[in-house]
Amino acid sequence: MYEFSFVYKSDPVRGRQWAEVFREQAPHIDFRIWPDVGDPEHVRFLAAWVPPDDIASRFPKLQVLFSSGAGVDQFDFHALPADLPVVRMVEPGIVSGMVEYVTHAVLDLHRDMPQYRRQQQRAEWQPRQAKLAADRRVGVLGLGSLGQAVLGQLKAMGFDCAGWSRSQHHIEGVRCHSGSEGLADFLASTDILICLLPLTEATRGFLNAQLFEQLPRGAGLVHVGRGPQLVDVDLLAALDAGQIGDAILDVTDPEPLPAAHPFWSHAHIALTPHIASMTHPLSAARVVLDNLHRFDRGEPMVGLVDRMRGY
Amino acid sequence: MYEFSFVYKSDPVRGRQWAEVFREQAPHIDFRIWPDVGDPEHVRFLAAWVPPDDIASRFPKLQVLFSSGAGVDQFDFHALPADLPVVRMVEPGIVSGMVEYVTHAVLDLHRDMPQYRRQQQRAEWQPRQAKLAADRRVGVLGLGSLGQAVLGQLKAMGFDCAGWSRSQHHIEGVRCHSGSEGLADFLASTDILICLLPLTEATRGFLNAQLFEQLPRGAGLVHVGRGPQLVDVDLLAALDAGQIGDAILDVTDPEPLPAAHPFWSHAHIALTPHIASMTHPLSAARVVLDNLHRFDRGEPMVGLVDRMRGY
Repeated sequence: MYEFSFVYKSDPVRGRQWAEVFREQAPHIDFRIWPDVGDPEHVRFLAAWVPPDDIASRFPKLQVLFSSGAGVDQFDFHALPADLPVVRMVEPGIVSGMVEYVTHAVLDLHRDMPQYRRQQQRAEWQPRQAKLAADRRVGVLGLGSLGQAVLGQLKAMGFDCAGWSRSQHHIEGVRCHSGSEGLADFLASTDILICLLPLTEATRGFLNAQLFEQLPRGAGLVHVGRGPQLVDVDLLAALDAGQIGDAILDVTDPEPLPAAHPFWSHAHIALTPHIASMTHPLSAARVVLDNLHRFDRGEPMVGLVDRMRGY
Repeated sequence: MYEFSFVYKSDPVRGRQWAEVFREQAPHIDFRIWPDVGDPEHVRFLAAWVPPDDIASRFPKLQVLFSSGAGVDQFDFHALPADLPVVRMVEPGIVSGMVEYVTHAVLDLHRDMPQYRRQQQRAEWQPRQAKLAADRRVGVLGLGSLGQAVLGQLKAMGFDCAGWSRSQHHIEGVRCHSGSEGLADFLASTDILICLLPLTEATRGFLNAQLFEQLPRGAGLVHVGRGPQLVDVDLLAALDAGQIGDAILDVTDPEPLPAAHPFWSHAHIALTPHIASMTHPLSAARVVLDNLHRFDRGEPMVGLVDRMRGY
């Protein structure tokens, strides 16, 4: 007999991969895929992308809520019991996927690929003089684990790297700016801007006309944060005015983006369906099991969310 | 008075940048931009992309011919004096440019970007499960300095790397194949094929139907060698049959590619106008000056061509 259960409430295909890892590595845990939750009194752990609304009354013995993805901004913290620990997914596949996506996007803009694609449509053979990476200023908004990993790769490729975050960071070989007073300097010297900010009340609508105006004319934008951080009409205006040269977007608001939205057909926007970084089900399940061991031993779990900051 | 002259016969805009480097660092050399060559008897050094047909009779005192770019396949060696040393350009900008281009191309194919671009045209939001880099087999044809630099970057990003060349190489972390007997194994285990071969009689038409058939179905092609290595109709047939999934081409035959050529409008071909790797005029001039010093001291010049091999 099982003493307690772990409920998975997210994509069921991935859930079956989690189930295999649990069966092999933690056979004492009753692993269940929503909605087949068994006795609700037995549910001590829940991994979900969107938790049930009545989480507190439905699972009275719940001890930890895991996000099945990297973000927790999809959680309504007010609807969650105040003392329930919330853990976001910190998994190596998330980091390598993001590094790959952003490296591709920065090289795409750095080497004028959007222009070459437009030239190809016109059957136009027109080489452009390439800049050296050392002469290309790349700036990352958000210096968490993803931002730092991205900067590590871009630095290794020789780009001129800077970063901005709410609080001051020190990263070797990266000009670090912070706070609202440091934002203007950061933006003024950024040719390619990468948004990797978490979604909070402070970052909602952060990528707006006022921010775009502070970039050098023709700057590139890579948005891999969250859709609601971008003011869509301001981006369209900045692109049409040439203030932003090209934008590469992996997140939108809403998702999926409706087919009639002007982003889809804009000649200076490349759009991908939120695929920059995805958890790999097998390693995600292993990361959660590792956190369960830490919880049992009373050690801090990796990815425990500070609810005051929201990430 | 100058004792001898150095003639530059290539793009005159770049020539003026070479002139500045020579004026600063080698004021004793009479640097001249074609066709203003002065006294032909004074010409001891020539840097050219396409040398004059009558090179031997026109410049009787010529001691070294430098290629102004990375390749020397544009030279007709039979028309050159047999004992004239020929030096190709080995310049750091060439290597970093190629590493950037190929890294971008491999990530583009690895992360399904051609499919996402086609989905965007249909306003279709459809995520695909990404593979891990470790599960993606990348194979480089040609293991010279460019091939090795490219493999170094791809290895660092976690790709499963292999290489093939005429003679056997040993590169840490790379499965090296060689000769015609090693080609089949190499191709059978390559998901993304990168051509970085020099153009010789042996590599002309190398990328043909027989080679494509030996790749796993749906493999990607990145062609950054030379245009005549690719059999155009065979690539079109392989793409239309799904044997090749997508191709990224930086070289064509001829260049520029005529506007009516089917490559321009093919949905599974991305075409750039031979821009993967370009010499940077300032550092190219410095590299040539360094070779002049070596020549004066009787030391071997960097990039001296073995005429028997043709590279």
